[in-house]
Amino acid sequence: MDRSWSARLAKSSWNRGTCQCCLSNRIQPLVVIQLDKKILPETKKWLISKIQEAELLVHPGEDDEGDMILLSISHCTLLHSAETLGLSKIYHNGEVMPFSITDRENFSNAANDEDFVTLAEKQYIIKQRLDHLKTLEEESIPGWPMNKKILKGELIFRKLVKQGLVKKIYPLHDVVKLKAFATQWYTEISLAIPTDDIHSYFGTPIAFYFSFLVFYTWSMVPPAVMGGLLYLMPWDSLIGYITLAIFNVIWSTVVLELWKRRSAELAYNWGTLLLKSNFEEPRPSYWGPLGKNPVTRRQEPYYPSWKRKVRMWLVSGPLVCALLGLSVIGMVAFFWFERLMKYYYKQTPCFLTLPLIYLPSIVHTLYTDLMNRFYKGVAERLTEWENHRVESSFQNFYTLKIIVFTFFNSFAVLFHIAFFKQDLQLLQKRLASLLIVSQVINQCTETLIPYMKERLFPLPGKKQSKDDPDIDKIHYQGQMTTCAGLFGEYIELFLQFGYLSFFSCVYPLTGALLLLNNLTEIRTDALKFCRIFQKPFAVPAANIGIWQSAFEMLGLVSVISNCFLILMLPQMTTYCQNNEIDNKTVLFLAIVLEQALIFLKIIIAFGIPDEPEWVRIKVAQIEFQSFQALKQQKQGL
Amino acid sequence: MDRSWSARLAKSSWNRGTCQCCLSNRIQPLVVIQLDKKILPETKKWLISKIQEAELLVHPGEDDEGDMILLSISHCTLLHSAETLGLSKIYHNGEVMPFSITDRENFSNAANDEDFVTLAEKQYIIKQRLDHLKTLEEESIPGWPMNKKILKGELIFRKLVKQGLVKKIYPLHDVVKLKAFATQWYTEISLAIPTDDIHSYFGTPIAFYFSFLVFYTWSMVPPAVMGGLLYLMPWDSLIGYITLAIFNVIWSTVVLELWKRRSAELAYNWGTLLLKSNFEEPRPSYWGPLGKNPVTRRQEPYYPSWKRKVRMWLVSGPLVCALLGLSVIGMVAFFWFERLMKYYYKQTPCFLTLPLIYLPSIVHTLYTDLMNRFYKGVAERLTEWENHRVESSFQNFYTLKIIVFTFFNSFAVLFHIAFFKQDLQLLQKRLASLLIVSQVINQCTETLIPYMKERLFPLPGKKQSKDDPDIDKIHYQGQMTTCAGLFGEYIELFLQFGYLSFFSCVYPLTGALLLLNNLTEIRTDALKFCRIFQKPFAVPAANIGIWQSAFEMLGLVSVISNCFLILMLPQMTTYCQNNEIDNKTVLFLAIVLEQALIFLKIIIAFGIPDEPEWVRIKVAQIEFQSFQALKQQKQGL
Repeated sequence: MDRSWSARLAKSSWNRGTCQCCLSNRIQPLVVIQLDKKILPETKKWLISKIQEAELLVHPGEDDEGDMILLSISHCTLLHSAETLGLSKIYHNGEVMPFSITDRENFSNAANDEDFVTLAEKQYIIKQRLDHLKTLEEESIPGWPMNKKILKGELIFRKLVKQGLVKKIYPLHDVVKLKAFATQWYTEISLAIPTDDIHSYFGTPIAFYFSFLVFYTWSMVPPAVMGGLLYLMPWDSLIGYITLAIFNVIWSTVVLELWKRRSAELAYNWGTLLLKSNFEEPRPSYWGPLGKNPVTRRQEPYYPSWKRKVRMWLVSGPLVCALLGLSVIGMVAFFWFERLMKYYYKQTPCFLTLPLIYLPSIVHTLYTDLMNRFYKGVAERLTEWENHRVESSFQNFYTLKIIVFTFFNSFAVLFHIAFFKQDLQLLQKRLASLLIVSQVINQCTETLIPYMKERLFPLPGKKQSKDDPDIDKIHYQGQMTTCAGLFGEYIELFLQFGYLSFFSCVYPLTGALLLLNNLTEIRTDALKFCRIFQKPFAVPAANIGIWQSAFEMLGLVSVISNCFLILMLPQMTTYCQNNEIDNKTVLFLAIVLEQALIFLKIIIAFGIPDEPEWVRIKVAQIEFQSFQALKQQKQGL
Repeated sequence: MDRSWSARLAKSSWNRGTCQCCLSNRIQPLVVIQLDKKILPETKKWLISKIQEAELLVHPGEDDEGDMILLSISHCTLLHSAETLGLSKIYHNGEVMPFSITDRENFSNAANDEDFVTLAEKQYIIKQRLDHLKTLEEESIPGWPMNKKILKGELIFRKLVKQGLVKKIYPLHDVVKLKAFATQWYTEISLAIPTDDIHSYFGTPIAFYFSFLVFYTWSMVPPAVMGGLLYLMPWDSLIGYITLAIFNVIWSTVVLELWKRRSAELAYNWGTLLLKSNFEEPRPSYWGPLGKNPVTRRQEPYYPSWKRKVRMWLVSGPLVCALLGLSVIGMVAFFWFERLMKYYYKQTPCFLTLPLIYLPSIVHTLYTDLMNRFYKGVAERLTEWENHRVESSFQNFYTLKIIVFTFFNSFAVLFHIAFFKQDLQLLQKRLASLLIVSQVINQCTETLIPYMKERLFPLPGKKQSKDDPDIDKIHYQGQMTTCAGLFGEYIELFLQFGYLSFFSCVYPLTGALLLLNNLTEIRTDALKFCRIFQKPFAVPAANIGIWQSAFEMLGLVSVISNCFLILMLPQMTTYCQNNEIDNKTVLFLAIVLEQALIFLKIIIAFGIPDEPEWVRIKVAQIEFQSFQALKQQKQGL
């Protein structure tokens, strides 16, 4: 058998799509379908023929095991998909316009540039075409038992994955492109990251995440300086703490508003600002009786939105609340159990009863972990069951559920310590341990351990068999860790933002510690995505989605937290005693301060427009031109 | 001289516009320009020729005094203007679509129906054409001193009004149309008002106002019932008051959210939902160096928005705050002065010192009135100076300034009594007097007095000279009271809403009294607009503008007010004493309740979509079709 497989890739063993107009001689494999090892040749052949129906380029990937299919896509098909997706590209006059295939000559480089549609977009388009592949008639699959059939209209790949025939589908790294920007990205200490390269290579969500991370790190400088000064200087006074609290509230509002503007700029440049979820294709798993989409008039499943709302408000909502309740009950039980054990230990302190002290923590940790896993499963299944039409809204509602739960689990204990136990020293200790210990552990488990593991125990494919390096590389990528989405990354920032905006007036060093952490975080995250993770698929997005609102919600809650934490400062107590101010007056002043700060937040949020002027004008231009075009089109009919 | 002027109107003494294709034999005068009595015939002739340049139909209005010009507009010109304005009309498939002149055959009745463009829209279009009438070259006016010239590009009518040559411009009532719906409207007791007739006759702002008024009156039923029960029943307890407070907060949120939905429905049906202020023509008084509008690419003055923002934040904002400060100082001085006078009177109570007691009130009333007038003038001039591009944004920012001031002036005293004096009995008395006495006075001064005046002392034109009733009617309309806008009407509802949502837990009858008031208000307001006021010009609008936000702001503040008013109830004090609850705990509970209610408000506002599903889909359809059309148009180029 001819082993120079890479040579074969270059030749014409690709089963070409119907479009013959734009194939170059060398086709680059973009996506891999990993099949079950036991697949029969006739089944594979059938599958390849099906994939060709999706107008994709297929290579049977005839390696030793024959369990791979390589996919690519022709330039024409790409352009068609780019239009359907509603992507915007650069027009000949330099403006970003919704791409139109019939008008392709007027878009810069649409006809000839391979990178007109970015790598990430190409791979997403292939994935989407596979996901939406349906059978037109009931069909039996060659090499399968006769009774296992694919029904009419069933999604082929969903079925094959469920049956275990398709193991996974993953996009391939493009080592040359990656090397061109990645090394500089994760080694240089400067905060300038190659955002546009990240966008075209990894796609908008990851590019948004890294842009946000860098923006957020920069924005951490003022609170770090303020907090550091307050910590070091002799003016460690009540005024200092109050100033820090007010500063925090203003800072968090301004930062989030400025990010919205930055985000709109990025989305405009990346051609996703005009994406409308209304016009998107539905998710593959969206179901309902076949009908017409009322907006686009395309045929697709139709599920009335009031039914979804009923499910969300009457089932998901109460269930989430119940699980939150369970988690709170767990916490209360833990506190009670801990006190009880301490009491027992005090009565007969010996090394047999010593474990009793640690028992509550262990049980509670186990309980929390169990609850976490259980909740995640429930949240995903609930959101799936709510039957959202588009991926972005599915993601938003799933994320929302997790955010609420994480918020409770992470901050309930701290709030308990702050406002019920009113033990500020314990709170400071907890914060310090969370900020220092947890962060170090996180960075290690997230990056160092997988990295070391990979170095010490290289995966079988890593050792390149010299006669066919290409195929080995593909195999190797299939065995890399799969990226679990940006969820964990955002949650980390979310918790940070919470610690900083809620409690920094108790522990002013928070800002500085977080700044330090984020400076390394930018590098380790980059390393993860470039070296450790399989390349993920990326859905084009117009912003960071629900995370914006989640961070804003933290900002709002932080007003309450800050105002009442100040009341509990020992400096406050001393001040009140010295000046003979009674409890009620102080509480009243705190309320007034709170309302004033919330009012200030509203004014700031209102005062800073969500989009920079130039973006607003560009978007209005396109809207205006569209309206004009609609009128003129009507005339033509 | 032939006095059968009405006969002449029907004939062809109209100076026709350039469009000759669609003139019927009988032209109805729509708008009147009232000239100065001393105007020279050559000046009037020149003016008529200028108006013809605006493609309007002109009748020299040769009555006895010769001081009128009558205007009308041809159907073709109307259609062109309807497109430029961005009005939507009913398409042949029954949907509301942005009107396009080139596609007019596909709009129902566009070609033949006189009422395709409503009376209100016609009159607005004529007004707009007059307002935008400019000189192309420097011109001297016949019959004017040679040195008084109209400069190049100057707005002709602005100049003429300033010079006193044009006294007023007013639209004419159409008595037949008005009678068809008006009598039923202001005499029947049912709450169903002929909204669509009001819309086509008076225009969107007035139709929105009356729809809102009816909606709001209906929505007053639950709090009236709740409050009434609480007032009459034996369960006049703490629980009752707390329930009423919570109910009020939820009620105000739900009502405002539901109105948003209703408003979107109305705007869709009236064809104004898709109006975009970006695409509008600028206000006549908008100034700046001539440039291109970046969105529409039309030539117009260009004034950068950052300059406007600088003016708003650095000049208008501080000035408004300073004037508010003056008003607060006035109030404080009044309280101090009153106490001082009472003290003097107590020392030597005789009838010489008796006037001293009333002096502070008189001085304060005078001061407030003076401040009010001064502030209104300043607010208008400031907003003009901020140089807003479109009328709606000018109106919004002007209204905002007045709202803030009115809010302070009307509620500061009540808040002072409630939270500083903590005198709930005085508060109740004040509310009762405000609700009963003020409302009665208001209804009288607003409607009855002008109505009676008109009956008792008919204006000269009212007595119809039998030989030419038409011309007398026109004269008569010119002498009717001019409508000062909907400002006063909304302010009344705004104050009501404030009384109800802020203080109803102190004075539960508020709801019932307001319900009663509004039931008459609907009639008296209708009477005012149909019989007493000159017909006003109406700018097409997509909603009630800034009033929506103003009412929402009241709702938010009401949470604070309600939570802390409960603390001061005598029932609360008794309850705390009986159960030995200390001040601090109660205050703390109030804060928790407040935060919980605000959270609830956010959830409700988030849970009720701003537009009904069907409107959302219609709008998305048009947007989608526009995007598609844009792509296809590009292809055609």
